[in-house]
Amino acid sequence: MNLLKNAAGRLVPLEVNGKEQIPFKGINKFKPTGNKANPPIRSCKDYPANGNKVVKDLQTALKIAGLKDGMTISTHHHLRNGDALTNILFDTIKKMRIKNIRWYPSASFPVHSHLIKYLKDGTIHHIEGSMNGPLGEFTSYGKMKGVGVLRSHGGRYQAVQDGDVHIDLAVIAAPTADSFGNATGDQGKSACGLLGFALADSEYADRVIVVTDNLVPFPCVPWQIQGNNVDHVVQVESLGDPAKIVSGTTQVTKSPDRLLIAEYVAKFVEDSGIMKDGFSFQAGAGGTALAFALFLKEKMKKKSIKARFVRGGSTKYLVEMLEEGLTEYILDGQTFDLEGVRSMHENVNHVNTSPFTSYNFHGKGNFASMVDAVVLGATEVDVNFNANVVTHSDGLLLHGIGGWQNCLFSKCTILAIPSFRDRIPVIVEKVTTLVGPGELIDVIATERGLCINPRRKDLLKSLKNSSLPIINIKDLKKEVNNICGGKPAKPKLNKEKIVAIIKWVDGTVLDSVYQVIE
Amino acid sequence: MNLLKNAAGRLVPLEVNGKEQIPFKGINKFKPTGNKANPPIRSCKDYPANGNKVVKDLQTALKIAGLKDGMTISTHHHLRNGDALTNILFDTIKKMRIKNIRWYPSASFPVHSHLIKYLKDGTIHHIEGSMNGPLGEFTSYGKMKGVGVLRSHGGRYQAVQDGDVHIDLAVIAAPTADSFGNATGDQGKSACGLLGFALADSEYADRVIVVTDNLVPFPCVPWQIQGNNVDHVVQVESLGDPAKIVSGTTQVTKSPDRLLIAEYVAKFVEDSGIMKDGFSFQAGAGGTALAFALFLKEKMKKKSIKARFVRGGSTKYLVEMLEEGLTEYILDGQTFDLEGVRSMHENVNHVNTSPFTSYNFHGKGNFASMVDAVVLGATEVDVNFNANVVTHSDGLLLHGIGGWQNCLFSKCTILAIPSFRDRIPVIVEKVTTLVGPGELIDVIATERGLCINPRRKDLLKSLKNSSLPIINIKDLKKEVNNICGGKPAKPKLNKEKIVAIIKWVDGTVLDSVYQVIE
Repeated sequence: MNLLKNAAGRLVPLEVNGKEQIPFKGINKFKPTGNKANPPIRSCKDYPANGNKVVKDLQTALKIAGLKDGMTISTHHHLRNGDALTNILFDTIKKMRIKNIRWYPSASFPVHSHLIKYLKDGTIHHIEGSMNGPLGEFTSYGKMKGVGVLRSHGGRYQAVQDGDVHIDLAVIAAPTADSFGNATGDQGKSACGLLGFALADSEYADRVIVVTDNLVPFPCVPWQIQGNNVDHVVQVESLGDPAKIVSGTTQVTKSPDRLLIAEYVAKFVEDSGIMKDGFSFQAGAGGTALAFALFLKEKMKKKSIKARFVRGGSTKYLVEMLEEGLTEYILDGQTFDLEGVRSMHENVNHVNTSPFTSYNFHGKGNFASMVDAVVLGATEVDVNFNANVVTHSDGLLLHGIGGWQNCLFSKCTILAIPSFRDRIPVIVEKVTTLVGPGELIDVIATERGLCINPRRKDLLKSLKNSSLPIINIKDLKKEVNNICGGKPAKPKLNKEKIVAIIKWVDGTVLDSVYQVIE
Repeated sequence: MNLLKNAAGRLVPLEVNGKEQIPFKGINKFKPTGNKANPPIRSCKDYPANGNKVVKDLQTALKIAGLKDGMTISTHHHLRNGDALTNILFDTIKKMRIKNIRWYPSASFPVHSHLIKYLKDGTIHHIEGSMNGPLGEFTSYGKMKGVGVLRSHGGRYQAVQDGDVHIDLAVIAAPTADSFGNATGDQGKSACGLLGFALADSEYADRVIVVTDNLVPFPCVPWQIQGNNVDHVVQVESLGDPAKIVSGTTQVTKSPDRLLIAEYVAKFVEDSGIMKDGFSFQAGAGGTALAFALFLKEKMKKKSIKARFVRGGSTKYLVEMLEEGLTEYILDGQTFDLEGVRSMHENVNHVNTSPFTSYNFHGKGNFASMVDAVVLGATEVDVNFNANVVTHSDGLLLHGIGGWQNCLFSKCTILAIPSFRDRIPVIVEKVTTLVGPGELIDVIATERGLCINPRRKDLLKSLKNSSLPIINIKDLKKEVNNICGGKPAKPKLNKEKIVAIIKWVDGTVLDSVYQVIE
């Protein structure tokens, strides 16, 4: 394998799965050339005039759509761990004796461990997309035929838009759809809120199949996916397990350490002056992030401060803020619980966003860089503020990138993390896998105090009178190593075999993930 | 000029404005090849991270955007005859000494007669777009340098999507926008309802400038135009005259003849069995169409029948139907009065549609063919049910095509027209300009009775027991000629000079418009 050291000092391959790659050149350094992908021109004359595109079943749709060996098939992950359709899809492909599919999911979940047998028997050649859990482990041990390619949500849109990834067939699970292919995620027994992760697929794939367990008369309103981009519609009994598609309710952390981190972050947002009328923030659905949102909410109420917008992943806590008038809008990319789905359906100020609007780095700007503060997690952070979010210190690839890389462009990026987990330090000398370059990460908030990136002199200045414990990241590393009895054990890696690559938001290669020796 | 007789028997040029043309091949006969247009890939690194794309003024925006001689500049017509911006735009272009612009409006109105001086002095080379009134007259007399190209709303989207027309610069009037370029028409002092006619422009133009007289903090919700497609934002005092952008209220006809036509059409929709639960219809904002909607509404109420959807252009009459529960949705392409704007803003079941969803013939189907009945006008209809909507019998080009051609694909197309106007027969032997082929036109409804296209045996059958006066179109023509003292005078045309062409929905050339001798 031909490797090159990129601008972040990481060795990356110049070719992956037969496709030439561009090594990472630094933040804002790569200038894309050329033009966007351009799907074939279609004609209404080849589609039913009455708008009814329903075909008998998935196999029929795949056949008419021209499924062949070696094609790229995409799916979205809005059904999360409740997704039954993707497994049925590959069962069907297997039955049709099709081989060597490149699977291009927006993410995969433990439920998709069902597909390991198809990775083994050659039905699926390799996965390009986030791999949460078992599929990541399978890949880590060097068992996948091709090389995994991990992209952020925005990077996935970019790759499709720019023609880096050509999708032959998009299969879109739709909690509600009409026979024309208009589809939405905000209604139906399998409601997941929205379908933004499938937007690029619907726009750029050669053929688009919408699969629904709730077929309604035309028009399906809203049409988060536009039927004008859809070739076939398939009706099925069930898309999956509603209880695993969205949580009944999301849970705030009860851990005293995590609560302390959340409190620190909220206080940081207040003391730094970020929290002011018309500000904006984004926090995920993890326990710490939820606790942060609750602490911040109290502070906002106390000072009568109102946000202009809050970014989702939405949960009932954000919905409460919207309904109590503490924010004018939720700009949402995915809904994590039932309250999120309800609000998305009912409230016009709970706005559907997509990886195009929010995260696509190859657009004329995107929303991510307009957010005042974003609170994220990480598996590892190093003393130069570089962060890892996909592998653990043992080298296993167990998480996807999600919108994480895209969010780093916010005006203030805060990683809210415990300083160690299971007696393994999270603050390290050098991250196992580089997913976020340190120059974009401003604050590390741990239970032992906050580390401010020395590049952010403005933040240090604004915190001069704050009672927050501000500590040096190198001191923190030492302290944590002392507690844990030393730095993390070196992972057992086969450096000769790259099992996956990490793309940066502009499509260049930021780092390599190596085989873990079992 | 190299001319060829097309499948409709009309002589059309094989080259127009230096671009090769394909003659009309028949309904559903032309198969497009190739791929959609693909704009250059952009990068967030070249746009302000804080999202603020506001520049000082329009001239600055045009300069930064790289305005040059010979470029194509597009505008939309949602501000109708109240539009001040387009005139200011060309005043600015003139001031910048730029020449030979191809102006690509979605339509032009009498207010744009201001631009005739720029057509004369070479600032504007020619217009591709509907020309209502003075600009059409100017063109008819052979005074425009290039050849006018008239397209339907759907045809305009198709031309941009397919790369037939490359827009260098789109200038989008936005009644409300944020500094990122998100824009909407449903709010602001110049509110026009929606901005769908500018959708293709925003998606495919090299550079997009949003001009607003109501700049709001990010996010502008809804974003009918997505800021991710926008390069620059310009703030101006006023986009135009609100009273001429939308009517205070739309007027139902008071003419007894027109009322009779409207009543006939409503009775036809009832007697033919089209009016049943879950049906759909489209009628414009003309006086007869409005009267039809009111008559139909009474019939629906009487029989407790509810429509699934009604297509706008919306008016207060359609809004009343929505609010009274007589239709579940309005699928709207433009709002004609203040009530339409209000409803669009307030009611989630009053849905924003675009020429892409509704009319683009080079998509995977569109909405137009799903509508049960559509009521349209015409300037002339001939005995083969061919219709004209752009020229009068004197040959003058005075109207645009609008969505008219696209609507012909509905399940039942009804032209509701007086049999003569100003003592000139509307029913003729052969239309002056062919805009709609007769095989798509099902019913001609006049004050003297209804003519059913003989191809529609099903309709004739369903009307067997109806008391409607069904007449033969040839008999009607004779009767009307008798009343008017003969057929219309032959227009004085210079057949050597084509001043405009009429595109079909698939981009082929349906007919030519000739110079009128003054």
